[in-house]
Amino acid sequence: MTTRVILDTDPGIDDSLAILLAVASPEVELAGVTVTSGNCPLADGVRNARNVLALAGRSDIPVCGGVSLPLIRPLYTAPETHGESGVGFARPPESPAPLHRENGVDLIIREILEHPGEVTLVAVAPLTNVAIAVRKEPRIINAVREVIIMGGALRADGNTTSLAEFNFYVDPHAAHIVLESGMPITLLPWDITQHIILTQADVDRLNRISSPITRFIADATRFYIEFHLAAFGFAGCSINDPAALALAFLPDLARTEPMHVAVEYTSELTAGKSVISYIGPATREPDAHDLTGYDTARWPPQWRHAFRPA
Amino acid sequence: MTTRVILDTDPGIDDSLAILLAVASPEVELAGVTVTSGNCPLADGVRNARNVLALAGRSDIPVCGGVSLPLIRPLYTAPETHGESGVGFARPPESPAPLHRENGVDLIIREILEHPGEVTLVAVAPLTNVAIAVRKEPRIINAVREVIIMGGALRADGNTTSLAEFNFYVDPHAAHIVLESGMPITLLPWDITQHIILTQADVDRLNRISSPITRFIADATRFYIEFHLAAFGFAGCSINDPAALALAFLPDLARTEPMHVAVEYTSELTAGKSVISYIGPATREPDAHDLTGYDTARWPPQWRHAFRPA
Amino acid sequence: MTTRVILDTDPGIDDSLAILLAVASPEVELAGVTVTSGNCPLADGVRNARNVLALAGRSDIPVCGGVSLPLIRPLYTAPETHGESGVGFARPPESPAPLHRENGVDLIIREILEHPGEVTLVAVAPLTNVAIAVRKEPRIINAVREVIIMGGALRADGNTTSLAEFNFYVDPHAAHIVLESGMPITLLPWDITQHIILTQADVDRLNRISSPITRFIADATRFYIEFHLAAFGFAGCSINDPAALALAFLPDLARTEPMHVAVEYTSELTAGKSVISYIGPATREPDAHDLTGYDTARWPPQWRHAFRPA
Amino acid sequence: MTTRVILDTDPGIDDSLAILLAVASPEVELAGVTVTSGNCPLADGVRNARNVLALAGRSDIPVCGGVSLPLIRPLYTAPETHGESGVGFARPPESPAPLHRENGVDLIIREILEHPGEVTLVAVAPLTNVAIAVRKEPRIINAVREVIIMGGALRADGNTTSLAEFNFYVDPHAAHIVLESGMPITLLPWDITQHIILTQADVDRLNRISSPITRFIADATRFYIEFHLAAFGFAGCSINDPAALALAFLPDLARTEPMHVAVEYTSELTAGKSVISYIGPATREPDAHDLTGYDTARWPPQWRHAFRPA
Ligand SMILES: [Ca+2]
Ligand SMILES: [Ca+2]
Ligand SMILES: [Ca+2]
Ligand SMILES: [Ca+2]
Repeated sequence: MTTRVILDTDPGIDDSLAILLAVASPEVELAGVTVTSGNCPLADGVRNARNVLALAGRSDIPVCGGVSLPLIRPLYTAPETHGESGVGFARPPESPAPLHRENGVDLIIREILEHPGEVTLVAVAPLTNVAIAVRKEPRIINAVREVIIMGGALRADGNTTSLAEFNFYVDPHAAHIVLESGMPITLLPWDITQHIILTQADVDRLNRISSPITRFIADATRFYIEFHLAAFGFAGCSINDPAALALAFLPDLARTEPMHVAVEYTSELTAGKSVISYIGPATREPDAHDLTGYDTARWPPQWRHAFRPA
Repeated sequence: MTTRVILDTDPGIDDSLAILLAVASPEVELAGVTVTSGNCPLADGVRNARNVLALAGRSDIPVCGGVSLPLIRPLYTAPETHGESGVGFARPPESPAPLHRENGVDLIIREILEHPGEVTLVAVAPLTNVAIAVRKEPRIINAVREVIIMGGALRADGNTTSLAEFNFYVDPHAAHIVLESGMPITLLPWDITQHIILTQADVDRLNRISSPITRFIADATRFYIEFHLAAFGFAGCSINDPAALALAFLPDLARTEPMHVAVEYTSELTAGKSVISYIGPATREPDAHDLTGYDTARWPPQWRHAFRPA
Repeated sequence: MTTRVILDTDPGIDDSLAILLAVASPEVELAGVTVTSGNCPLADGVRNARNVLALAGRSDIPVCGGVSLPLIRPLYTAPETHGESGVGFARPPESPAPLHRENGVDLIIREILEHPGEVTLVAVAPLTNVAIAVRKEPRIINAVREVIIMGGALRADGNTTSLAEFNFYVDPHAAHIVLESGMPITLLPWDITQHIILTQADVDRLNRISSPITRFIADATRFYIEFHLAAFGFAGCSINDPAALALAFLPDLARTEPMHVAVEYTSELTAGKSVISYIGPATREPDAHDLTGYDTARWPPQWRHAFRPA
Repeated sequence: MTTRVILDTDPGIDDSLAILLAVASPEVELAGVTVTSGNCPLADGVRNARNVLALAGRSDIPVCGGVSLPLIRPLYTAPETHGESGVGFARPPESPAPLHRENGVDLIIREILEHPGEVTLVAVAPLTNVAIAVRKEPRIINAVREVIIMGGALRADGNTTSLAEFNFYVDPHAAHIVLESGMPITLLPWDITQHIILTQADVDRLNRISSPITRFIADATRFYIEFHLAAFGFAGCSINDPAALALAFLPDLARTEPMHVAVEYTSELTAGKSVISYIGPATREPDAHDLTGYDTARWPPQWRHAFRPA
């Protein structure tokens, strides 16, 4: 029994790892990779997603670019974290696959409506594509099986401003639309993913196998790990996006509880801050599911197989 | 030489009159009518647009529903102005035409890209459809010939709040996206359209001809005129949307000058207010074209032919 | 029967004219002049008020500086309108009077509480002093006879941004506090004062009398008139502040009607815009009095006597 | 060598304990207690401060009421935390001392200007009084020795909303004014004070001595401890305000580091949130001192003497 997954990305180093984990996981049927701007501009993200899939021998999976600008705010990218190309020092060969013409927004809508109750949307980028899909075709709200979102910093400092996590900061209006949409959401915030680490030792161990994939991972993460070493003082990197993807087929990795999460989108100072209004005059009833723990000890075994030679 | 027009609407009484004027005007090739929520919810608007076209014998023209909710704000409709059905007291027969499946957003994108430099988009509704089209496919920005927008109250009181005109108030975020998009815009604000009046005498004169169209117009505008009589004290109604449509083929009806128009979308008190920042610390360079006058004496002669028997 | 008046100012050319009109008017007992920053910084305004009173031979009237910065926004002054000194080209001699030590905020509070029901506060500057007085001693709310405010642009373009009048723009938070305070307010907005004009011909006629006061007026207004000529194309200047002062003893110069006026203070784009919420979802009950007309034909005869030799 | 202290309060249970600690500490010369609304309305806070000082035999110390409403937001009090009276179940006898007429704002200004470089202002309430003092008399900025503020939640959940601590939530505009004023500030946030606990066992131990003061403390804290037990699940209460007061004479209780702290005051969702902008596009240079630790082991020995019989 496999899970049909759409992966909405801004690749992005950890997005690339999530794509590799998805295609390495027999539990996942990857229906498509959609892309928006975030870690890097849209065109770079589409190229990176295509090249990573080609590296894994899965150019059959459609990669569809969606929206290239946040709804309201100016685009904010993260070249200092993901490198100018978006995948660190990695320079994989160009994918030979033909371009898919479908817009990422439409792939999301079409897939969900064609497979009602079956598609898990794993969104590991600014939520612009998802928000526009929700507004363009609200029937997906009841037709989607689950939406797993990597985003937000609820009770931890952010990673982009001192309050806000990157994905919610880049497009807080989109995050607002999605969180208020009524879709069944599981939210994996930076509070948790910052503790799910790929260490340099992990990468070194991996590199004993020599393959285009392992070389890509080494080159991509080396940049990311250097950034983490400079910013946070340890030789490793958070693997936010693969951690979200894993929940699509290993939901009991996580302990979740329902809570209401809102996103600030009007103030510059607090833009992108995600808020659980659980006390005080603005208390809100819980609704979406938020994660309060993540069992990394049960981390999917295919994680290392993801890095196998193609 | 005809002008290819897409009419983006929320019908709505004056939207219906704009549709009738468009199909009555040989200068206009109406490529499609797209619909969003505004004067009435989306489904009602689609029905009204279809029925009006059927009444005019033009069910061949596609009517495509687009987005049903504003981007960020809750939906605000205007049943007190346009009646519960959206077309006042009129109850035209249901259109027998098959439904068009294309989303209004996609019709806008496809038409503009298929006919680069040829399509005039006349937007007489909250700008949600247009904003999402711009974000989904930014190539339309350079491919569209002109965007004529009925919206905003620049130097006049609004018609929905004391500051804001209806279309900009309902979706100020969409108005912001469109005004900042870089498309070639002509803005016909409420400042001007409030003085372009259809009087009860005009309607009475029209009713000497008996036809389904004239009966529809009489029944639709009677509600609207009663509203204007109660609200503003005269027996007539502003015909905002036909006035915008007329500019597609009679551009010299208007005197325009370039100015920069911004829209307030963060504050509840001033939501939807359109601002020309021409003095003071926030002065901005002119860009889009705004109207400063409108020559109603040259009002299109087909206005009365629009009301001819089908 | 005289009216006890406190004049809260930011002199300022028209503030200076208001001071001169007050001391020339037997109907007015000028209890004090308080000063805040606005047209010029606080220290300049205090100096200007003192010098104008000395010129008029009324150094007995206390001039008390109050607050030097707006509550929240950075200070914004108007040297292009009032000159670097605040009184155009005029350079009156320094007042020999000793400085008054009382803070302007405290003078306002003390006067109103010592003379309950008798003091008319004429506020012709950013409302910072008045707002802080209200917060510091709310008993003045019921003890003041009337508050006449020059400020706001309700249904006209502003004079500082395209939406906002200077006094409300400089400190919109203070304007909010005062308008919501419950004090009996008469609001004289820029809508009206922009049409109350002192022409170059008026000034020339005045200059047939040679006195320090007439020379001051000529030198002060020459700068102001040049500004108006450049900005608005006519040789004259709006005399906003004297027009407000005149209402203290000639209330029937004005036609007033109650309305609720709110001020925008959260958004940069619309900061300082004053709003009458009379239609739509945010409609508010009328409360403060707003002016809808002003009978300049009955302009106080002492206007020219104000310019008499000291 | 004593420290001259003004204590700005909203008593309030822990404010009352701070007053008792101040008068029990020979290192402190308590120049005055000023009061604003917060935990309870102004009049109740003044009464409570007076009664607590009378209980301690120090009715000679002036208690001066200041501002009764936050600058902009509506008043929000905390009867569920501090009881209807503001001091839990305690009902101390009414102070026989005559009322002091000076406004709390003026006491703050006068004391600081009369003793330049000597006065430590300990502010343990919404910062309304301090903000208005700063605006009314900016010379206090350079004349005050130090401002110790209990307020804000920097990297912890708030205690009033999920983001905001009570004092900053009640008047975020005032907090903004004070934090941006340039005064030398030490900020003791809720991050730290939530861990400085008075336990039921502490109170029981104290009650072995029978005196009006110990009975007051028992009756006041019993309410507070019951609230903490219900809200947080332990029999004890945070003693935020005494912890701030103690820093006036035991500054090395705390480890501080400079950082820039801003306060959100425009958005309802995030109102009162205090932000250290240390990463990302809005990074700000450090300025005020923030606490990163507090050595409760060195908690002042007079803490228990504060509870001695009067
Ligand atoms: Ca990502
Ligand atoms: Ca319309
Ligand atoms: Ca003035
Ligand atoms: Ca307190």
